[in-house]
Amino acid sequence: MTPFEHEISVTWGDCDPAKIVYTGNIPGYALSAINAFWEHVLDGDGWYQMELDWNVGTPFVHMSLDFRSPITPRAKLACSVRPIRLGNTTIEFEVIGRQDRLCNFEGRFVCVFTDATTFTKRTAPSAFLDVLRPYLVK
Amino acid sequence: MTPFEHEISVTWGDCDPAKIVYTGNIPGYALSAINAFWEHVLDGDGWYQMELDWNVGTPFVHMSLDFRSPITPRAKLACSVRPIRLGNTTIEFEVIGRQDRLCNFEGRFVCVFTDATTFTKRTAPSAFLDVLRPYLVK
Amino acid sequence: MTPFEHEISVTWGDCDPAKIVYTGNIPGYALSAINAFWEHVLDGDGWYQMELDWNVGTPFVHMSLDFRSPITPRAKLACSVRPIRLGNTTIEFEVIGRQDRLCNFEGRFVCVFTDATTFTKRTAPSAFLDVLRPYLVK
Amino acid sequence: MTPFEHEISVTWGDCDPAKIVYTGNIPGYALSAINAFWEHVLDGDGWYQMELDWNVGTPFVHMSLDFRSPITPRAKLACSVRPIRLGNTTIEFEVIGRQDRLCNFEGRFVCVFTDATTFTKRTAPSAFLDVLRPYLVK
Repeated sequence: MTPFEHEISVTWGDCDPAKIVYTGNIPGYALSAINAFWEHVLDGDGWYQMELDWNVGTPFVHMSLDFRSPITPRAKLACSVRPIRLGNTTIEFEVIGRQDRLCNFEGRFVCVFTDATTFTKRTAPSAFLDVLRPYLVK
Repeated sequence: MTPFEHEISVTWGDCDPAKIVYTGNIPGYALSAINAFWEHVLDGDGWYQMELDWNVGTPFVHMSLDFRSPITPRAKLACSVRPIRLGNTTIEFEVIGRQDRLCNFEGRFVCVFTDATTFTKRTAPSAFLDVLRPYLVK
Repeated sequence: MTPFEHEISVTWGDCDPAKIVYTGNIPGYALSAINAFWEHVLDGDGWYQMELDWNVGTPFVHMSLDFRSPITPRAKLACSVRPIRLGNTTIEFEVIGRQDRLCNFEGRFVCVFTDATTFTKRTAPSAFLDVLRPYLVK
Repeated sequence: MTPFEHEISVTWGDCDPAKIVYTGNIPGYALSAINAFWEHVLDGDGWYQMELDWNVGTPFVHMSLDFRSPITPRAKLACSVRPIRLGNTTIEFEVIGRQDRLCNFEGRFVCVFTDATTFTKRTAPSAFLDVLRPYLVK
């Protein structure tokens, strides 16, 4: 399956005096894209509904980003998201951000599945596994 | 020299419905701490003055964070910052965030020195090297 | 002319532990909507292009917001924007945010037109007036 | 009693390409100052503890801000906060932001007291009234 793509409108307020997006805002873009991925595969349910309706949390334990070129408001930011590893209780995402096909950043994000109420590790619900597996590259 | 320590007041608005700081806000904490480190070693000059008064930019090319335990507003967040590698045109920082001595996150951040006007790589000003070297562990 | 409408995806990270959008994020939603309005009437040019390409700034001198009902990620936030007053050097916008047709907030925002380079007041460019006037209610 | 004063470190990431703080960030400064006021009068308890430990919410129903002069990272931002009106179920705050004694913004903020669990209006706890009354100007 092709990676899911989420488009972000970059704006003036995201930029710093160097006229490019402030680095501190870029992880937030990637996280929005991961949330949009969940909404895409779970019929509109993102982290908010996963936590409150499914009682499943997915807190981050790791993130790593390489910044390849500055992001500006002169083009939409296309973020492609795909799960690249699915463990018993963890999931790893790759997120690549591009403007006009040029790569702006590449990132890896690792989350654990938790019972939201007790904040303890759990295995992913099987309904999640079913929608995630097609995205995993063989 | 001991690492520089910067204290952050974590607040309600930084937290998400899981009652802990939203992951997307944590890189911003670490960046604030790095900016405060610059202010500490450059007599009050942070990124704003470095860019506008020194004509020196330090854009990020990489960041990597491990999240060890959730952050809440129940304690101050102490961020210790130290440069751990100084190349010809790059600098790497380690930032460790702790609440009540417990580690919340550990991160590595790599920046390049640029001429701010032309956005091209340059070597660090010698005034910067002088204040950075004492922090580098032998 | 009907007000311009801008849709915002509300997410988990915008919410606080009360499970609703943190108040501090709401003015930013309204500002995004005003920026999108400019992009709509100026062929894609928002504040970034207005400042850098047109040399026109529109700094805010006033904002006022009434919060009518909490915002959550359970629906898109539709922000309708229209200029309601156009002075010699100022413009006032009304922004109304709604989820599922229910009003979440109503706001008024006053900006002045400036020469971006000198940060001094100026009259709005005639190209701006031409596209703004149709939105003004008689 | 003199107004409570809360100091904010303005940084690079808060600024936009006009080299001044982005307007969308200013309400958040004022809210941080109000939260710090609560921490000051309630022995360290801000909105987080009020909601989770006292079961008292104070959602905003109105905010109004006049922006008097641009904010930059060249000085600390001193925010003075005082309650100016205390109704049966509401409280109004005045927040004034200054850099080097020059006024940057003046704002009014109205909150209602709620039972946090049921999100319904309530009167303020008497422990709150006791610490608020000395700040109210006769």
